Amino acid sequence: MKKLRIGIAGLGTVAQGVLHLIKNNGNLMSDRTGIELVVQRIASRSARPDVDLLGAAFSTDVHDLVADPEVDVVLELIGGEGLAKELIESALAANKPVVTANKAVVAAHGDQLLAGGNVPLRFEAAVAGAIPIIQSLSQGLAANRINAIYGIINGTCNYMLTVMEEEGLAFNEVLAQAQALGYAEADPAFDIDGIDAAHKLTILAALGFATSYDFSALYIEGITQIAAEDIQYAKELGFKIKHLGIAAHTPAGLETRVHPALVPSSALLASVNGVMNAVQVMSDGAGETLFSGPGAGGAATASAVLADVLALGSLVAAHTSDALGQSQDKPAVDTGPAIRRVAMDDIPSACYLRIPTVDRPGVFAQVASALSAHSISIEAVIQKEQPSADASVSIVIMTNVVVESVLNAALSELSALDTVVGDITRIRVAPTH
Amino acid sequence: MKKLRIGIAGLGTVAQGVLHLIKNNGNLMSDRTGIELVVQRIASRSARPDVDLLGAAFSTDVHDLVADPEVDVVLELIGGEGLAKELIESALAANKPVVTANKAVVAAHGDQLLAGGNVPLRFEAAVAGAIPIIQSLSQGLAANRINAIYGIINGTCNYMLTVMEEEGLAFNEVLAQAQALGYAEADPAFDIDGIDAAHKLTILAALGFATSYDFSALYIEGITQIAAEDIQYAKELGFKIKHLGIAAHTPAGLETRVHPALVPSSALLASVNGVMNAVQVMSDGAGETLFSGPGAGGAATASAVLADVLALGSLVAAHTSDALGQSQDKPAVDTGPAIRRVAMDDIPSACYLRIPTVDRPGVFAQVASALSAHSISIEAVIQKEQPSADASVSIVIMTNVVVESVLNAALSELSALDTVVGDITRIRVAPTH
Repeated sequence: MKKLRIGIAGLGTVAQGVLHLIKNNGNLMSDRTGIELVVQRIASRSARPDVDLLGAAFSTDVHDLVADPEVDVVLELIGGEGLAKELIESALAANKPVVTANKAVVAAHGDQLLAGGNVPLRFEAAVAGAIPIIQSLSQGLAANRINAIYGIINGTCNYMLTVMEEEGLAFNEVLAQAQALGYAEADPAFDIDGIDAAHKLTILAALGFATSYDFSALYIEGITQIAAEDIQYAKELGFKIKHLGIAAHTPAGLETRVHPALVPSSALLASVNGVMNAVQVMSDGAGETLFSGPGAGGAATASAVLADVLALGSLVAAHTSDALGQSQDKPAVDTGPAIRRVAMDDIPSACYLRIPTVDRPGVFAQVASALSAHSISIEAVIQKEQPSADASVSIVIMTNVVVESVLNAALSELSALDTVVGDITRIRVAPTH
Repeated sequence: MKKLRIGIAGLGTVAQGVLHLIKNNGNLMSDRTGIELVVQRIASRSARPDVDLLGAAFSTDVHDLVADPEVDVVLELIGGEGLAKELIESALAANKPVVTANKAVVAAHGDQLLAGGNVPLRFEAAVAGAIPIIQSLSQGLAANRINAIYGIINGTCNYMLTVMEEEGLAFNEVLAQAQALGYAEADPAFDIDGIDAAHKLTILAALGFATSYDFSALYIEGITQIAAEDIQYAKELGFKIKHLGIAAHTPAGLETRVHPALVPSSALLASVNGVMNAVQVMSDGAGETLFSGPGAGGAATASAVLADVLALGSLVAAHTSDALGQSQDKPAVDTGPAIRRVAMDDIPSACYLRIPTVDRPGVFAQVASALSAHSISIEAVIQKEQPSADASVSIVIMTNVVVESVLNAALSELSALDTVVGDITRIRVAPTH
């Protein structure tokens, strides 16, 4: 039995989840892996006498974890960007492998952090919580050329869209409910504007396509413009609305985008509901694989953190520090020629449009002719007889596949029509690769 | 860059898939893992001049793979039990790690094969094709106590049940169709009687619950008694019928059983259709995780075979033969006290019953009273007015949760009633753990 001595930075939900799992399942982990996890030191700004530290030493300074020669592996579970990044860097510089759940730091500084160290930096918990998607991408599917990755990777968005669908409630009502239940933060922007999903997609794209960690290359759109009626119209058209992260390798290059998307109701992704996350991977050998599970929560995130720790442990147990640097457990970074990123303007999508217009004869013909002027054809239409409270009606249209910039030009023209009386909602149909 | 020299036994669909992936994606694999795969030798009874052997030496005797000092790893892709087992044993005895796709051999001889070798025997491809479920269970979820595993692990059964549902066809019609499409064998018994699923569940249970590879401990039932009308009745009751492998750790012990089961229509498992496989794992930290993908096919199986090969490669690359024996990549076997297996007779299930009776007043009361005599209560009933061609009617009943032996006794009594005019169909509701 090999001992692996871990140092934990942070004492929040995830760190407590890690301590809880080690306490309950430590023997089981040893039986499975031959590794005994010892919590050597815990560092947190303030002590938590209510938490069982499993006999670990306690520090208020996270740098003590790096300085402690008895700590083999550092777990960065403090979150945030400044101190977390500094801790990861100093641990790697001291040849201590690091496990982090910090998607923001990896998405923003992945290239630099992964290039720098001689020992692994692992971050299974940074994407999709409990789901072992990093391991599946870098090992389970290692023999495949990845064509596309589609992810439901923000639990708040998925919860909100699910409740809007099931209960027909408006966005703001569901947001308030989600906040009351703890599924959305008091300041929900990070989730509902798509930033959190974009952090995760940055990581998935870098791993799946051996490219750089480039958050700035992503197109990002949240769910704030989705109305309950969009979900109902989509249903009539045979779709569900999901907030997706999409990374796809097309002949034009690499698409990386986060936005609401129409998914066929019969697709497995469409059945991933509530706070659950899922990542679907399309690859040349394995075909269509999907991985789902809880995307957040102390225990689920701790499960992923400990998967990383135990994988490191098996390398340490192999008695070779060399192995730590060379193993495939360190994801490949930018090994091939850089893949060209496709600008959002150049990406083709079929689209759902909801156009609020005055209730007057001839308006539909006017809309259709504006679209037609841009060679956009109409694949399906829903037009309800009932005007809404403000006397407007909604024209709902599914377009053919059309390049983003062309549709944008058409939407500008449509918006300028005096018969169009409100913001046009545009939701792209999820591509198939 | 480390070279890993592989020897392949067999030249069938899976072996060809392996060669194809190495040819197309070999460089990609090297970039990702730092390992260059070299196909050193291929052994097959008969040569296949139409297949590109990638420069490998060719033998007609699989033992040449073990004898060849230039072969680092042996891939057993010949299938069957006799020669395959012999090859695995002799390779392990010669300290050559083995990768196999052979579920029958692992299910029947896993304990012996895993206990014997000093080097790893890996079998990701033996369960659920492309899905990296072995790795996810033994590494991705290594920190968790597994409560239950539910698997749709036979593509033929899932395809047939899906088509029966979507097209309302009878079992035999769908079977003929599946055979014509190559989704079912000319002799389909192995799949539709549940044997193949039971092989896979034996492996999942051994890994998930650190117990022995004991095929004989499983309760096994196929899908041959499922009629199109059962699928329709189940739908009315809010369920889909799936052929499931279930391994669950309950207070009574370990349940291991393979049979058709009612799954709530809203469950993610219920949306896994056609030839796709899926494995759902319930665990204490990660919660409800699900892994889906193609369960068969040359390319999909080859993807899993090569995931194993590359994982072995990372150990070989670490320059330590010691690592091969000690790493967590060798699944734990029977490390804890043996878990008691629960006999099928003692397992409680809610059940769907379809009882063909004569069309006469008082029959339902007679059936209800026979159930009631065994303290079985009726949770839902469907009774159609229309008698079928033979003038019988079907009484469809959902029971409360009742222990198997009690229900069996009640079913014997019911069958003996002169108003019951055919075989009673019983389908258990999938448990929730």
